[in-house]
Amino acid sequence: MLSGILPPLVTPFREDGTLDLAAFEANLEAYAAHELGGYLVLGSNGEAGVLDESEKLALIGATRRRAAGRLVLAGTGLESTAATIELTRKAAAAGADAALVLTPHYYKAQMRTEVLKRHFEAVAEASPIPVLLYSVPVFTGLPLPPELPAALSAHPRIVGIKESSGDLGLMGRVLGSVPASFAVACGSAPVLFPALCLGAVAGVLAVACCAPRPTAALYHAFRRGDRETALRLQRAITPLATAVTATYGVPGLKLAVDLAGLRGGVPRAPLPPAPPGARAELARLLAEAEAAA
Amino acid sequence: MLSGILPPLVTPFREDGTLDLAAFEANLEAYAAHELGGYLVLGSNGEAGVLDESEKLALIGATRRRAAGRLVLAGTGLESTAATIELTRKAAAAGADAALVLTPHYYKAQMRTEVLKRHFEAVAEASPIPVLLYSVPVFTGLPLPPELPAALSAHPRIVGIKESSGDLGLMGRVLGSVPASFAVACGSAPVLFPALCLGAVAGVLAVACCAPRPTAALYHAFRRGDRETALRLQRAITPLATAVTATYGVPGLKLAVDLAGLRGGVPRAPLPPAPPGARAELARLLAEAEAAA
Amino acid sequence: MLSGILPPLVTPFREDGTLDLAAFEANLEAYAAHELGGYLVLGSNGEAGVLDESEKLALIGATRRRAAGRLVLAGTGLESTAATIELTRKAAAAGADAALVLTPHYYKAQMRTEVLKRHFEAVAEASPIPVLLYSVPVFTGLPLPPELPAALSAHPRIVGIKESSGDLGLMGRVLGSVPASFAVACGSAPVLFPALCLGAVAGVLAVACCAPRPTAALYHAFRRGDRETALRLQRAITPLATAVTATYGVPGLKLAVDLAGLRGGVPRAPLPPAPPGARAELARLLAEAEAAA
Amino acid sequence: MLSGILPPLVTPFREDGTLDLAAFEANLEAYAAHELGGYLVLGSNGEAGVLDESEKLALIGATRRRAAGRLVLAGTGLESTAATIELTRKAAAAGADAALVLTPHYYKAQMRTEVLKRHFEAVAEASPIPVLLYSVPVFTGLPLPPELPAALSAHPRIVGIKESSGDLGLMGRVLGSVPASFAVACGSAPVLFPALCLGAVAGVLAVACCAPRPTAALYHAFRRGDRETALRLQRAITPLATAVTATYGVPGLKLAVDLAGLRGGVPRAPLPPAPPGARAELARLLAEAEAAA
Repeated sequence: MLSGILPPLVTPFREDGTLDLAAFEANLEAYAAHELGGYLVLGSNGEAGVLDESEKLALIGATRRRAAGRLVLAGTGLESTAATIELTRKAAAAGADAALVLTPHYYKAQMRTEVLKRHFEAVAEASPIPVLLYSVPVFTGLPLPPELPAALSAHPRIVGIKESSGDLGLMGRVLGSVPASFAVACGSAPVLFPALCLGAVAGVLAVACCAPRPTAALYHAFRRGDRETALRLQRAITPLATAVTATYGVPGLKLAVDLAGLRGGVPRAPLPPAPPGARAELARLLAEAEAAA
Repeated sequence: MLSGILPPLVTPFREDGTLDLAAFEANLEAYAAHELGGYLVLGSNGEAGVLDESEKLALIGATRRRAAGRLVLAGTGLESTAATIELTRKAAAAGADAALVLTPHYYKAQMRTEVLKRHFEAVAEASPIPVLLYSVPVFTGLPLPPELPAALSAHPRIVGIKESSGDLGLMGRVLGSVPASFAVACGSAPVLFPALCLGAVAGVLAVACCAPRPTAALYHAFRRGDRETALRLQRAITPLATAVTATYGVPGLKLAVDLAGLRGGVPRAPLPPAPPGARAELARLLAEAEAAA
Repeated sequence: MLSGILPPLVTPFREDGTLDLAAFEANLEAYAAHELGGYLVLGSNGEAGVLDESEKLALIGATRRRAAGRLVLAGTGLESTAATIELTRKAAAAGADAALVLTPHYYKAQMRTEVLKRHFEAVAEASPIPVLLYSVPVFTGLPLPPELPAALSAHPRIVGIKESSGDLGLMGRVLGSVPASFAVACGSAPVLFPALCLGAVAGVLAVACCAPRPTAALYHAFRRGDRETALRLQRAITPLATAVTATYGVPGLKLAVDLAGLRGGVPRAPLPPAPPGARAELARLLAEAEAAA
Repeated sequence: MLSGILPPLVTPFREDGTLDLAAFEANLEAYAAHELGGYLVLGSNGEAGVLDESEKLALIGATRRRAAGRLVLAGTGLESTAATIELTRKAAAAGADAALVLTPHYYKAQMRTEVLKRHFEAVAEASPIPVLLYSVPVFTGLPLPPELPAALSAHPRIVGIKESSGDLGLMGRVLGSVPASFAVACGSAPVLFPALCLGAVAGVLAVACCAPRPTAALYHAFRRGDRETALRLQRAITPLATAVTATYGVPGLKLAVDLAGLRGGVPRAPLPPAPPGARAELARLLAEAEAAA
C-alpha cells in the first residue's frame, strides 16, 4: 500500500496562530499535479506536537477530501498507549488509511524492545487501520532497536516503518529481517537513492513539500532503472533537503514551501520563523533542485 | 519561596488505569509528617506526559488541599508556548503556587537560547504565578544553555530552576551568574550534598517520594552545618536514588513507594511495571537508606 | 589508483606477543587468489596503535613483497603532525604506494576543520607518496567535518578518503563536493552496496580479511551491473561484517580469520581474545557468507 | 601520598619545535613558591601524546630535580599494556614517585570493565611505583566503569584515581565504594570545591598551571574549614578554568601560562596557537582569579 514519495504536509497557521485549513487544502490541490505516492498528515514537519485533537482531526479530514484516492497516512503516536489508541481510532474515522505511530520516547531508558513491542501491538490490536512504525531519533533521542520491526512484522496490521535516522546500516539490517510485504520508507532525503537501492519502497521526505517534482522524479527514475538520473537528482536535492531539515528545521521548510509558491507561513511558538539569511539561500537551493528535474 | 526537599509526587492509578486520587491524597497525608519544603505535582516522575488536562487539574487541586501551607509546585510545560500558558493559568486557578516549566524539546536543534528565552518570557508574562525553569536532559535530550537562567533571572516572575542533569559544573556556572534571589534546586539526588555546598537551596528528588525521612535529614543536617552527617546520608541514599531513577525509572520508583508503605502502583502503558528482580533490591536499599537517618 | 576491495590486514602475533611476520605473509599469499584491489597495512584492524615503528616498517615491507603489484596502502597517522610526516616518509621508503592518514583526535574539541586541513596539507607537502584521509569516528570520537575532503582535494597529493562512519548522508555530501578523481572508499561493510550506488570506488573492510571471496564478489557484481547479486551478497555478508566489527571487534575478526583457514591469532593486550561463545557464531556467519558467493 | 593541588605541567617547545627543558624547569622554579601538593608531568595538558620517549624521560627527570621533595606523578599510559609497563618502569627509573595510567581507549567498545581491570593489574604488577588510574572521557571518549576503582583498590600498588569527567554523581559512587586509603583526585576545576566536600583529597587541574595561587588557596581554605572562602574562590577560578580547558584547550592554557609570567608557548602541531581573541579574555580572567586569592 505504501510506495513512492509522500510529503509530510506542513500545517499553515493564520497570523493569529489559528489553523489555516484553506491554505492547507490549497497545498494539497497543488500537490495533485505531481506524481506522489500519497500524503503524511501530522508528522514532525506538520508540527503534530503543538496541535490539539480537533485541529488534528480537521487536518486528516481535509487531507482525505483532497487526496483523490492517494494514500493518507496520519501521525497518531502519543506518549501513552491508551491515548495513542484513542487518537488512532479517531484518525481512522476521520479518513486516514493508515496510522504512523511515533515511538514513545520521554522515558527513553525504559523504552526497551519488549516495551515498544507491547506498545505497538496494543495499538495495532485496537486500530481499525494498518499501522506503521515511525522512528526519528533526531527528535526522539531514541534509536530504533534493530530487531523491533521484524518482531512486529508478524502482526497482520503492522505493515511497515518510516525510518528517519538516515542510518543505512540499520535500514539494511531491517530490510534483511522483515518479509517483503513489510514496507520500509526512507525518512532522510540525503540517502533516498541508496535507500531505494537497498530495497526501500517509499520516501516520506520534508523536501517533497517544497520540491515535489525533483523528489518524485528521483523515485521514478530509480523505478524505471535509470540510476544515472536518480543519482544526479539525489545530488541536486540533497543541499535543499539538508537546509529544510538539519539546518533550518520546520521554520526553513515552511519558508521554502512559501518560496515554492505554496502556503507555508511561520510555525507555532516556540518554533521561531526562519532567520533572515535563510530566504536567499533557500531560494537558490530550490532553483537548483528544480533545474535538475 | 523554594527551599528544602520536595518530592516529585507519583501518580497512582487504579487497576483499570484511571487516576486514583484517594491514593494520591493518602501519600500527601503521609508526607505531612516529614520535614519537607513542599511538593512538585506533574513532574516527570508524576507521569505528566500521559495525563490529560482534567487529571492534571484534579491532581493540583488535591495537592493544594493536602499541602497544609507548603509550597505547591506544578509542572505545566508543554511543547507549545500557547498551550503552556493556558495550562499554567489553569494550574494557578487550581491552586498551584508556582509553575515548573519544562524546556520544550521535540525540535531540539531549533531550541536555541534565544528561542527558549522567548518561550519562558512569554509564559512568565502571561502567568499569574511565579515560574521556574525545568531542565532534565535525560528525558528531553536537550542540554540547558548555561547562560539561559541568568538571561531570564531579570524577569520578576521567573524565580528559579530545577536543574536535573547532575552536572555540577553547569550548576556552579548558573549559581555564579544569577542573583541570590534566583532559586536553584537540585534535581539529581546523587549530587544533592555537593549541590547544597555550591549554593543550591532545594532538592526536588524522586528518592524523596519513597524515602522522605533520610532525604530531608540530609538537607537539614547540611543547613545546621553538620556536614559529616550530611555526607553520611548522601552515601546512604545514593544507591536507592540511583535505583529509582537511572536503573528502574518511574516503575521502580512507584514500587519503592509501595514498599515504603505508601501508594505507588504501576505506571501507565507503555511504561511497564518494575521487573520481578527489582522488589528485593529496592526493599534492601530502602532499608539501608532508612537505617542511616 | 584506489578501487575494488582491500582487506585491512590483521597483524598476527606469536604466543610470546612478538610479531609473526611469517603468518602475516601467509595471509597475503592466500589473498593473492582473490580478486582484491590491494591491501591496507597498519589500519585500525591491524592494531597499528600497539605496534612500534620497527614492527610497522617490517609489516609494510612484507606487504610490498607479497603484494604482486597490487596497491599497498599504509596507515601512518599519529597524533603529531611531525611524527606523522616522519612515519609517512619511512613508510614510503619501505614500499607503501600511498599513506592512509588517520585524523588526529585526542584533543577533539580543537580539531576544527582548519586545524585538520593544515595537518593533512603539511603531511601531503612532505610526503613522497599520495595521501588519503582516514575518518573512523567509532574509534576516534571525531566526526568528519563534511567540508574537509573538498577543501583538501585541490592538493595534488591528497587523492581520497576512507570514510568509515557508515553515514551515507555524509558520504553523499562528500561525493557531491569533490572532483571525480578524488577516491572515496567505504569503510563500513553493511553499507558497501549503497555506497557503491552513491559513487564510492572501493571498500576497505574488515570482513574482507576473513571473507574475501563474497566481499570481492559483491564489488564485482556491482561493477558489471548485476545489482541483484550485489544486494543478495550485501545481505549475506552484513551479519558477519557486524560480528567482526561492532559485536566482537578486532578479537572477533582475528578469530574469524583463523576460522577461515588463515592466520589471525589473538590481539595484543589489553585487547582480549574473543569470548568463548563467539567461535560457533562466527563459524556459522562465515559459512553463510561464503555460501552466498 | 596524594593531596592538595597538582598542576598538570605544560611542556614548552622552542620555536623550532624541540623541547625547551629550561623553560620547563623555570616554571617548576616558579611553582616552588606556591603551596602545591606536587606535580603531574606528561598529562593531557602536557601534550604527552606528541612527545617521544626520550622527551618524556627528560621531562620526568627535570621534574624530579626541581620538585624539592614534592610528589612527582608521571603519565605513562599507552594503548598497549606491554608498552605501558615498559614506560612505567622507565618513568620510575627517571624519578617518578607514582604513575598516572590513562585508560586505553582506541578500541572503546572492547574496553569493558574486566579488560580494563586486567590492564591496570598487569601494569601495577610490573610497576616499581604506585599506580593511579586516569579517566578523562573528554579526550578518550570512554566513560569510567563506576565499579572499576573499587575492583582495583584491593591491589596494593593501585592507590588512587584522577577522575576528570566532572561527574560528581560518579565521583560520589566511587568514593562510596573504595577504602579511605584510595585517593580520589578531582580533574575538573569547576567542581573542585564540591568534589572536596564529597571527599576528594586532591585536584590535578589545568588552571593550577596558570593560577596556582588562587587554586591552592581554595584547597587550603577548604582544609581549614573556611567554606565561604573556598566557595568564593571556586566562583573566581571557574571562568578561567573553563577558558583554559573547554573553550581554548591546551593552546589557551599555554597562552595563560605565558600571561601569568611563566613559560607556555605554543603547542605542537596539529594543535594550533590560541586564537587572537583569546589573549585579552584570558588576561582578564587571570586577573579576576588572582584578585580573589
